[in-house]
Amino acid sequence: MKALVKTTAGPGFTLSDVPVPQIRDDEVLIRVRRAGVCGTDVHIHDWDAWAQGRCHPQFTVGHEFAGDVSEVGALVTDVHVGDRVTAEGHIVCGRCPLCRTGNSHVCPNTRIIGVDRDGCFAEYIAMPATNVWHLDNNISYDVGGIHDPMGNAFHTALTASIPGSTVLVTGCGPIGLFAIGICRAAGASHIITSDVSETRLALARTMGAHEALRPDAVDAAVRAATDGLGVDVVLEMSGVPSAIHQGLSLVRVGGRVQMLGLPARPMEIDLANEVIFKGITIYGVVGRRMYDTWMQMGQFLRSGQFDPTPVITHRFPLEEAAEAIAAIKSGEAGKVIFEIA
Amino acid sequence: MKALVKTTAGPGFTLSDVPVPQIRDDEVLIRVRRAGVCGTDVHIHDWDAWAQGRCHPQFTVGHEFAGDVSEVGALVTDVHVGDRVTAEGHIVCGRCPLCRTGNSHVCPNTRIIGVDRDGCFAEYIAMPATNVWHLDNNISYDVGGIHDPMGNAFHTALTASIPGSTVLVTGCGPIGLFAIGICRAAGASHIITSDVSETRLALARTMGAHEALRPDAVDAAVRAATDGLGVDVVLEMSGVPSAIHQGLSLVRVGGRVQMLGLPARPMEIDLANEVIFKGITIYGVVGRRMYDTWMQMGQFLRSGQFDPTPVITHRFPLEEAAEAIAAIKSGEAGKVIFEIA
Amino acid sequence: MKALVKTTAGPGFTLSDVPVPQIRDDEVLIRVRRAGVCGTDVHIHDWDAWAQGRCHPQFTVGHEFAGDVSEVGALVTDVHVGDRVTAEGHIVCGRCPLCRTGNSHVCPNTRIIGVDRDGCFAEYIAMPATNVWHLDNNISYDVGGIHDPMGNAFHTALTASIPGSTVLVTGCGPIGLFAIGICRAAGASHIITSDVSETRLALARTMGAHEALRPDAVDAAVRAATDGLGVDVVLEMSGVPSAIHQGLSLVRVGGRVQMLGLPARPMEIDLANEVIFKGITIYGVVGRRMYDTWMQMGQFLRSGQFDPTPVITHRFPLEEAAEAIAAIKSGEAGKVIFEIA
Amino acid sequence: MKALVKTTAGPGFTLSDVPVPQIRDDEVLIRVRRAGVCGTDVHIHDWDAWAQGRCHPQFTVGHEFAGDVSEVGALVTDVHVGDRVTAEGHIVCGRCPLCRTGNSHVCPNTRIIGVDRDGCFAEYIAMPATNVWHLDNNISYDVGGIHDPMGNAFHTALTASIPGSTVLVTGCGPIGLFAIGICRAAGASHIITSDVSETRLALARTMGAHEALRPDAVDAAVRAATDGLGVDVVLEMSGVPSAIHQGLSLVRVGGRVQMLGLPARPMEIDLANEVIFKGITIYGVVGRRMYDTWMQMGQFLRSGQFDPTPVITHRFPLEEAAEAIAAIKSGEAGKVIFEIA
Repeated sequence: MKALVKTTAGPGFTLSDVPVPQIRDDEVLIRVRRAGVCGTDVHIHDWDAWAQGRCHPQFTVGHEFAGDVSEVGALVTDVHVGDRVTAEGHIVCGRCPLCRTGNSHVCPNTRIIGVDRDGCFAEYIAMPATNVWHLDNNISYDVGGIHDPMGNAFHTALTASIPGSTVLVTGCGPIGLFAIGICRAAGASHIITSDVSETRLALARTMGAHEALRPDAVDAAVRAATDGLGVDVVLEMSGVPSAIHQGLSLVRVGGRVQMLGLPARPMEIDLANEVIFKGITIYGVVGRRMYDTWMQMGQFLRSGQFDPTPVITHRFPLEEAAEAIAAIKSGEAGKVIFEIA
Repeated sequence: MKALVKTTAGPGFTLSDVPVPQIRDDEVLIRVRRAGVCGTDVHIHDWDAWAQGRCHPQFTVGHEFAGDVSEVGALVTDVHVGDRVTAEGHIVCGRCPLCRTGNSHVCPNTRIIGVDRDGCFAEYIAMPATNVWHLDNNISYDVGGIHDPMGNAFHTALTASIPGSTVLVTGCGPIGLFAIGICRAAGASHIITSDVSETRLALARTMGAHEALRPDAVDAAVRAATDGLGVDVVLEMSGVPSAIHQGLSLVRVGGRVQMLGLPARPMEIDLANEVIFKGITIYGVVGRRMYDTWMQMGQFLRSGQFDPTPVITHRFPLEEAAEAIAAIKSGEAGKVIFEIA
Repeated sequence: MKALVKTTAGPGFTLSDVPVPQIRDDEVLIRVRRAGVCGTDVHIHDWDAWAQGRCHPQFTVGHEFAGDVSEVGALVTDVHVGDRVTAEGHIVCGRCPLCRTGNSHVCPNTRIIGVDRDGCFAEYIAMPATNVWHLDNNISYDVGGIHDPMGNAFHTALTASIPGSTVLVTGCGPIGLFAIGICRAAGASHIITSDVSETRLALARTMGAHEALRPDAVDAAVRAATDGLGVDVVLEMSGVPSAIHQGLSLVRVGGRVQMLGLPARPMEIDLANEVIFKGITIYGVVGRRMYDTWMQMGQFLRSGQFDPTPVITHRFPLEEAAEAIAAIKSGEAGKVIFEIA
Repeated sequence: MKALVKTTAGPGFTLSDVPVPQIRDDEVLIRVRRAGVCGTDVHIHDWDAWAQGRCHPQFTVGHEFAGDVSEVGALVTDVHVGDRVTAEGHIVCGRCPLCRTGNSHVCPNTRIIGVDRDGCFAEYIAMPATNVWHLDNNISYDVGGIHDPMGNAFHTALTASIPGSTVLVTGCGPIGLFAIGICRAAGASHIITSDVSETRLALARTMGAHEALRPDAVDAAVRAATDGLGVDVVLEMSGVPSAIHQGLSLVRVGGRVQMLGLPARPMEIDLANEVIFKGITIYGVVGRRMYDTWMQMGQFLRSGQFDPTPVITHRFPLEEAAEAIAAIKSGEAGKVIFEIA
């Protein structure tokens, strides 16, 4: 089958012809229809320091996808050939203290598809049946293929208290854009969001931001909207130090900062003034709560109260992986997906 | 001034001419514009067992209102003549363990306007300045006058987890109707609501219920909407035993039942099967959290994400108190208000 | 092997010679050393209405036990022959919305050992490997054999906020006695407990109750200890209507009532005055949170901060099942266990 | 009266003869018996950058104390001459959104005694009656005089989940030492604590630490005690960058870090690896929750489950302020107090 493979310890992907995966008795084989391209894929493509420390070529890339089940293992009872599905890409151990207390999202034994084992930028992928998530009939493959990053956004937004809250979303990449729509659907009273790209700010407005602003206009907007107090909740989606400082500055005393964006390197934080004297809570967001976040996401999508489709701005065949990576690097894209079958 | 007074220990109200209240140094005098009529007022009017045990005529009735500040006491710094205001009607002690831990809503020393001291069905009312709540300019006196029951609805809804939840609201009186709108604005995925009045069911749909049904149709609807599991949250707004049992039956295992409706007398509960084996949480709702609930309400109203005005169905002058009481007793009304000035 | 079997749809147990269980590939076989006898076993023994509606003889009784692993299925990787273990007796589906969100304790598809399938009053029991819980070396088989009811007590106590709280425990059966020790270890400031048995009240004092009283002395004691306000937390462990009313009366406004004791039949509750006007939260306790409760229990036992052994008052061989049942029915026993091997 | 006064914008305190404070109608005058000396007083004494930016001499220093009420204002009803009292030193506005929602500890309008107005290193202090906290008869003036820092420790410890948890306390200054005792009383299963002072490590053991270690021994101890997973809760009490990094490293994935110690300046944090990928929660601790923390502290002290007296290591008269400051700076002291009357 066709697959986008990380073949060597250096930059780039290779479109290769590889064998269809063999499944174990507790796995299923899935025909991939759509796959989302993520910043993580860019790191692997560019073979940066993180990728060099984590990944071991050769493997098929990609961890966001949707498709149809084409084969099921002998022990699998809840998934059937022909089912329309997506999957949680974190394959966890199920036996550690975290897994046994509903906190699999931070299982120390996690293996991630497309990073630690073969991924989904291919015509077929093998997945443990317990990781499979069924798609309702009214959910398209497009939307199914982006459940992973949408799940990050749901996890980030809904582990804060959103109804009636003022929210600042720093960074309007795809996950930030999803989070705006989720916060709007969950009853945020006022959503201010920042980015340096006018394209992304326009998408932010489409997704429901009350104000979508360049970073230098955010301070005044937050002060005006909150009687000078600051916002109840910050969703930090950029990983950019200046935005992180801005978020810590603009969250109100006693407020909450959800951190998802990954700074490229250590940065100076004034813990006394930015965190302690403000009495705030900071929460580090990893993946998606398994499967609390997925249940919530299913409800929001099923009811139609949240529609992520405007965030999808670019579509490519696997053959145009270079264009897909370039689109993400431009900083102007919403969600970039591969159309595979 | 004109006031609706409970003059004697027996049924009825009397429209009387009484002195304008004198205010203490820490109080303000408010010119009443609108006042909401509540089931509690009906109990006092009818002089039922509860009223006989609690109330001591003579006093002015009424506890929901909005108006303009006409005079402020010498110690008052945050309220000014001319301010458009409503007020929390529970006057609490501020010194007990509950008050000192943010739980004034259950202060054992609470005195309620219109029940324990003179109320608001009058041209003027005296209120402690700390109980005053300012109205934004875009909030009408009509809406200001129903902050008390709206606050009950906000307290009931937002102390449960609403975003993405399935919700059953049993009882579509005014507070139930408000709660429907609040749940919809706060991201409930599916709201089913029940009442015996077609008029109220129509209002429920206006306020955002996905399904508004007679009680005998609710079981099947809940089963269908939740794959047979039951709803995540029940808001019990009726006080009717059959509805309470229905709510306990239809909440999912591990779910949450918010109880606000007051049954007229003790009723049989099968604690083993309706509560314990189901692993549910029940929360008894008293008043409004002071002032967390009011802050949330302010945000929902200010942003326009929730509009209570369709719930107001009847308006009367103070002279037509009998008609106002009759409208509530009909079981067909939404919110009934007095237009006073 | 020897086993205590419910052979027919009528009163009694039969000590029988039955085949050693065959295990599936995902199960282990455990040599039983100690087994706890529970009120549920009494219901099955007496063949009351609940047992008639739920159980289908013939099956081996018993659901609380500890022992040694003697055989492991082909797919089992985390349990080994010779391991000292106990087990969660609720065998859950692992795929329903409750199981997938860390709420397996209320899985609607639960099957319980000794109730829905063969139990542990026998020389051997087969258990799914995922239900097995390893015992630390410093934990005796005696203590291992009562993890199930201790877990109920941990679940009941630690889902309330105990440090610094005043606690009323109504009912000093084994689970109530465990809960007293847990609350004491978890920093409850004052624990009042009630029972009609002087023997059990003496055990309550041994376990750490500050005051262990007959029910008619409890009201005055709670009022004295709490400045008349009532306790922060009630753990209802009796299922007796008078105790339930006493608990609802003596919990403070805004407090929390954890309900574990099962009333034999529906009872009258004055929801308005006992629940709603008091603004309390009621939580129905089912089993043990899987496996949050087990983790907490492991920590409390490993550290030595909680010692359940004084609660064990009676020991019998399987041959004396009638005496074991009688000891429980006396209302004077602590925990009754079988010594099997 | 005698008072320790910050007279000029430069280093040092001056023991002066100043007028006894005049009280307002809502204040009380308190005869000071004991007063605690705090790191904040050292900053003011040394006139460091923080002090220069915040303080405006001349004013009496000191914010931790206990004594007897000697005079009450005309409006005060709950405090009487002769009452044995301490007080919350944060004087808050009572009207801002934080104050009105039970979050006065982060009131933006807070004024602190001994910092923003005259403090307690004097024979008398004026306090608003609402800030006064009554001492039980069994609580000594010594213990009353250190309620402020004990309250910090209660706030830090009890806003985490302590029963059954493993806890690392980084820094064994007075607040760290209090926190150890509180965690032990609240059911922590294993408490590891670090400091560079052997004197303080010995005090840590006295207060209940299971292991009190020099920083370089902590990593191995935590790994051993937690099967390599890390502790559930870190209480960061040092403000030292190396200890902060150690805490972030040794908290388990999904764990909680309570930050109270104030780093002297901004420091590098690797947000990606130390916070986000670990999925942890960080909480900045300001003062004491008003008055939830005080209620908890009252319960722990009243019951005798927590005894802070071993932490008090040094006592001085006001005349020996220089020695008191030196004792704190040594890094070897527990709590240093003034004996005033």
